[in-house]
Amino acid sequence: MTELILALDFGGTKHTAGLAARGEHTWRGRRQMFSPPGADADLDLAAMLSMGQALLSGQQPAAVGVSFGGPVEYSTGVVRLSHHVPGWENKPLRRIIADAFGAPAFVDNDANLGAIGEHRFGAGQGYDSLLYITVSTGVGGGWVLNGRPWRGHDSMAGEFGHTVVDPNGPPCVCGGRGCVERLAAGPMIARRAREWLSAEPERDTALRRLVKHDLAAIDAQAVAQAAARGDEMAWEALAASARALGQAIGNAANLVNPQRFVLGGGVTKSGARYWDAIRASARSAAMPEVHFDIVPAHLGDDAPLWGAVALVEIETGA
Amino acid sequence: MTELILALDFGGTKHTAGLAARGEHTWRGRRQMFSPPGADADLDLAAMLSMGQALLSGQQPAAVGVSFGGPVEYSTGVVRLSHHVPGWENKPLRRIIADAFGAPAFVDNDANLGAIGEHRFGAGQGYDSLLYITVSTGVGGGWVLNGRPWRGHDSMAGEFGHTVVDPNGPPCVCGGRGCVERLAAGPMIARRAREWLSAEPERDTALRRLVKHDLAAIDAQAVAQAAARGDEMAWEALAASARALGQAIGNAANLVNPQRFVLGGGVTKSGARYWDAIRASARSAAMPEVHFDIVPAHLGDDAPLWGAVALVEIETGA
Repeated sequence: MTELILALDFGGTKHTAGLAARGEHTWRGRRQMFSPPGADADLDLAAMLSMGQALLSGQQPAAVGVSFGGPVEYSTGVVRLSHHVPGWENKPLRRIIADAFGAPAFVDNDANLGAIGEHRFGAGQGYDSLLYITVSTGVGGGWVLNGRPWRGHDSMAGEFGHTVVDPNGPPCVCGGRGCVERLAAGPMIARRAREWLSAEPERDTALRRLVKHDLAAIDAQAVAQAAARGDEMAWEALAASARALGQAIGNAANLVNPQRFVLGGGVTKSGARYWDAIRASARSAAMPEVHFDIVPAHLGDDAPLWGAVALVEIETGA
Repeated sequence: MTELILALDFGGTKHTAGLAARGEHTWRGRRQMFSPPGADADLDLAAMLSMGQALLSGQQPAAVGVSFGGPVEYSTGVVRLSHHVPGWENKPLRRIIADAFGAPAFVDNDANLGAIGEHRFGAGQGYDSLLYITVSTGVGGGWVLNGRPWRGHDSMAGEFGHTVVDPNGPPCVCGGRGCVERLAAGPMIARRAREWLSAEPERDTALRRLVKHDLAAIDAQAVAQAAARGDEMAWEALAASARALGQAIGNAANLVNPQRFVLGGGVTKSGARYWDAIRASARSAAMPEVHFDIVPAHLGDDAPLWGAVALVEIETGA
């Protein structure tokens, strides 16, 4: 008998549900919605439950895997909080989902599930150890070690974004200074380029033309596009991100020595030169005896959703 | 029938052999010798084999656990090299020991075995995950994750000493800049104090008196003694080491979230103020949600030797 696995991904702004069968690696159904402005936890939950029920259309899932875009205590499945949506504090998401679908549920954060998803279905297949890193609005990370998720003692392992690259660097939201996230995330690339252009109002650059002189419109994607057109100031704003990522990857390689680093998230679509800069910086930070490669994620935005499927397969012994 | 486990520890300058029985946590016999000046791998090996045979006095060991003070490829038991003694390059130590004693042998580096030893017999008992850090002439580290040694893909995990604390810091032997080892190891504490005293030849300090004005005689222990007598310049030399260690511990906590950090090695005997500074710096570098404690190793210099016993117990399924 086919065992159905329902996968749910609560993102910051976007929620996705997918239905898969155990052992199959294509979606039988997949739905997505944007969280409405002013949404809270209960609204998002209700919307997600209804997407899940619609996908199931009366069928019973064997289990439900849930990705949450924020810290979760894995052993209990209780959400600590969301940095994007109010009302998630200490929500017992695992129990709520299990009750709603009458099936076992497993809940983990999106970065851990991205790691598990890429390990089972994507760029990490056949690798014994990897660090999955997502670089977009923030920088997150998740570990697979010995072929299994490694969540750490407090379910907090993988906070790659808040390892320090430069103790004299700019202050980060976490209270630290010069964290990877503060130096490498998309908004920081944009901010850097914006500041440089503001400081030289007469300088005509590809980036300035690209945003039609509206510096507020600069985002990391625009910076990458301008860099691709030969805008060296834009490239420098991007390169600073690549160097910070690479240095932290090199440090992580020395400390944990995983076989592979898998990088996903919007900022990693910034072109070959960006990737070369990450790799060069990582190689120079790591000891010569420490080997690894750095590759793009294969599953794109669906990595956490596939991770939710993988989590069910792992936890229910497939 | 009692199963005897022979444990051998090849240190940089000191070699130790111990004989234990499976399940017993006291030595039935223990011998130690200093490596003579000008020793090479073959000489050290011969000396170690003879200590082992003397301890066994004709009895047959069930297995031999071996600690080596340098990088070892764990799966093959081949030593890569020694940074202290010539002739170790690519030496198949596991096979040599197994042949000599007619018993299975297991070989790992001293930091990994320190971790395993402390986990099974020392400060890590009952802890699921820990990073063991040794701070003496160099800075090394070894992981226990999920209650098992984590060696990494190239047997290189735990190179805590070569994670970067300050990318603009002084150059390290590894080719990097501002590594933990370069900022925190004993010789660097001594060097810092020596440089400061050289720069102020008229300044009378407890440290200067302690070494009878012979700055070349300054070592980390002297710096710690002077700091304990209220010498603030000596304390600053020591505090820089504590801060670097703490910052790297905080980063490792964010990245891997182990339950406990166990610190051993001569430099960690520098007093309560040194420990307080490590803890404060680590706590400030780690995210608030990431919990851990930092405690002294229990087994002292015998941690790798007990780790060799633990390794045999793990590998032979006890």
